[in-house]
Amino acid sequence: MVGSMDTITSVREMIEWSRFQISCRKDTGFVPTMGYLHDGHLSLVNRARSENDSVVVSVFVNPTQFGPNEDLSVYPRDPDGDSAKLEAAGIDVLFVPEAGELYSPSHETFVELERLSRHLCGKSRPLHFRGVATIVLKLFNIVLPTNAYFGSKDYQQLQVIKNMVRDLNVNTMVIGCPTIREHDGLAMSSRNSYLSPDQRKQAICLYDALMIARRLFAAREPDPNAYLQAMKSRVLSEPDALPDYISLVHPETLENLTTVNYNALAVMAVRIGKTRLIDNMLLAEPASRNQ
Amino acid sequence: MVGSMDTITSVREMIEWSRFQISCRKDTGFVPTMGYLHDGHLSLVNRARSENDSVVVSVFVNPTQFGPNEDLSVYPRDPDGDSAKLEAAGIDVLFVPEAGELYSPSHETFVELERLSRHLCGKSRPLHFRGVATIVLKLFNIVLPTNAYFGSKDYQQLQVIKNMVRDLNVNTMVIGCPTIREHDGLAMSSRNSYLSPDQRKQAICLYDALMIARRLFAAREPDPNAYLQAMKSRVLSEPDALPDYISLVHPETLENLTTVNYNALAVMAVRIGKTRLIDNMLLAEPASRNQ
Repeated sequence: MVGSMDTITSVREMIEWSRFQISCRKDTGFVPTMGYLHDGHLSLVNRARSENDSVVVSVFVNPTQFGPNEDLSVYPRDPDGDSAKLEAAGIDVLFVPEAGELYSPSHETFVELERLSRHLCGKSRPLHFRGVATIVLKLFNIVLPTNAYFGSKDYQQLQVIKNMVRDLNVNTMVIGCPTIREHDGLAMSSRNSYLSPDQRKQAICLYDALMIARRLFAAREPDPNAYLQAMKSRVLSEPDALPDYISLVHPETLENLTTVNYNALAVMAVRIGKTRLIDNMLLAEPASRNQ
Repeated sequence: MVGSMDTITSVREMIEWSRFQISCRKDTGFVPTMGYLHDGHLSLVNRARSENDSVVVSVFVNPTQFGPNEDLSVYPRDPDGDSAKLEAAGIDVLFVPEAGELYSPSHETFVELERLSRHLCGKSRPLHFRGVATIVLKLFNIVLPTNAYFGSKDYQQLQVIKNMVRDLNVNTMVIGCPTIREHDGLAMSSRNSYLSPDQRKQAICLYDALMIARRLFAAREPDPNAYLQAMKSRVLSEPDALPDYISLVHPETLENLTTVNYNALAVMAVRIGKTRLIDNMLLAEPASRNQ
C-alpha cells in the first residue's frame, strides 16, 4: 500500500512545512540519519510515529563530521531503498537536502562542546562532534521538531546532543532509544556493510567484550582495570581486530572511572580491518536498563 | 500613563510566553541588551514596536563575552531606570534572567565563527564573539523572535549574528539599525558613562576620524594607508587616546582592504584612558547610507 510520504529537498520548503505544523499545533517527531537504513533506524522511526502527529526523517551524509582520511566518499548509500522503507514505515516527510543547500561556501559557524567532545571518539576524531552538533542544530532549526530520536549505539553523540540542547535552550526533546542488534549481538550499523564475511564473524568480539563487562559488573567487580583487561583480551583474540579505545566511563560526563560502583558505561571503538565499529553498554541496576 | 509591561525572570516562563505568541501567529520583535539603556537602545525598541505585534527586550550582562581582565564587574547597571524607560516605550515583556538561569554549572556548548570573529575586536578580545554568538542564540531560542534588532555601532557583532543566523538556519530575521549619536557625534554607548568630563571631550576624536575617512572617500582616495594615517593622527592628537585598532575593511568579510573603491567600512577601537570605545562608518555611495 502506498502511503502519502512527501520527499522534500529544499531547505526553504522544509522550513515552510515545519512552520505550518507548528501553526497547527501539531507535534513533529524527527529522526536524523545518514541513510542506508537498517532496523535500528526503523525502530527510531516507529517510536517517533507512536509519539507524534507527524514524522520527518532526514537522510544527509554530513561532510563536516568526517575527518580528511575518513570514509565520507565511500559511505554506503541507497536512496531508493531508504525511500521505500520509510514510505512503508508511514512517515510524513523524507527530507533529503543537498550539501550545497545546507552549507554555503562561506559557512563558518560551528557548535562546539568543550568537555564532552574531547573524550572517547573525540580523541581520534577531533572535529567529529563539532560537525555532529552543528548539523543537528541546523536540522532542528529547519524541521522544528517537538521530539528527536537517536540510537544509543552512538552513545557519545547522544550525550553531545543532549548537552547542546540543554546549553543552547533548544526547543526539542532529545530521546535516546535502545541499540538494535543482529541475532548474534552485533550492533546494527550502516558501516557493517563494509565487513567481509570473515570480518563479520570477528566483529562479534565487541558485543562479547561488553557481555564480559556486564558479568563483571553483576559480580560487583570494583576495579576498572579488571574490566578493561578482560575486554581487551577478547577483542585481541580476533586476528583482524584492533581497539581504538576500550573504556569504562561515567555515563554522563564520559570521564574515566577510577572505581566501579553504581553506574558505568562500558564503551569501545574497534577496527575490524579498515572498518571502525563502536558499541557500548550501560552497566546499572538493573543491568540491562538501556540496552 | 502606565502600560502593561510584564517583567519575566524565569527562562521557563519566558519560553512559555514565546510559544504562546507563536501559537497565536503573532510576530515578536526582540531587542537583546546589557541594560543601562540609552537612546540608541530605545531607537531599536521603537523600530521593533513599529514592525511587530509584540516586543520583548532582554537585559542581561552576559559574563561569557567578557575577558578575564575586562569590565564585567563594573559594567554600569540601572535596573529601575531601564524598567521605567521600557515601560514608557510600550514594550510587552522585559526579560531579566539571572546568570544562573542561563548558564548551568556544567555549561560547555559554545557557538564559534571561524573567520569573522578573528578580525578587529576579536584580536584583543579573543573569546568575545564566541560569548556573543552563544548568548544571542540562547536568547533567540527562549524568545523565539520573528525579528531581532541590533545597533550598527557594534558592527562586527551585527555581522557575527547575521552569519550565525544564516549558517545555523535560525528562524529569526536580524535587522541592523543606524548608530545613534550624541549632538557632537559621539556614538551612544553605556560605556560612555565611564568617561570623565575631560575624557568625554577627547572622545569626539573617534567620530572626527571617521568624518576624515568619509571626506577622503568622497574625494575618491584609493589608498587605505592615506585613510589610516589621517585617522590615527586625529586620534593621537588627544592626550588620553590610544588606538586598539583603526582599520579599513570589507563591510561583509571584515578583511583589510588593499585598495578602496566601491564599499568600505572605516572601523576603530580606541581607549580613552581606561575606557575602550568603538565606532565605525560605512563608506559607500551615497556615503551616509547606514549611518
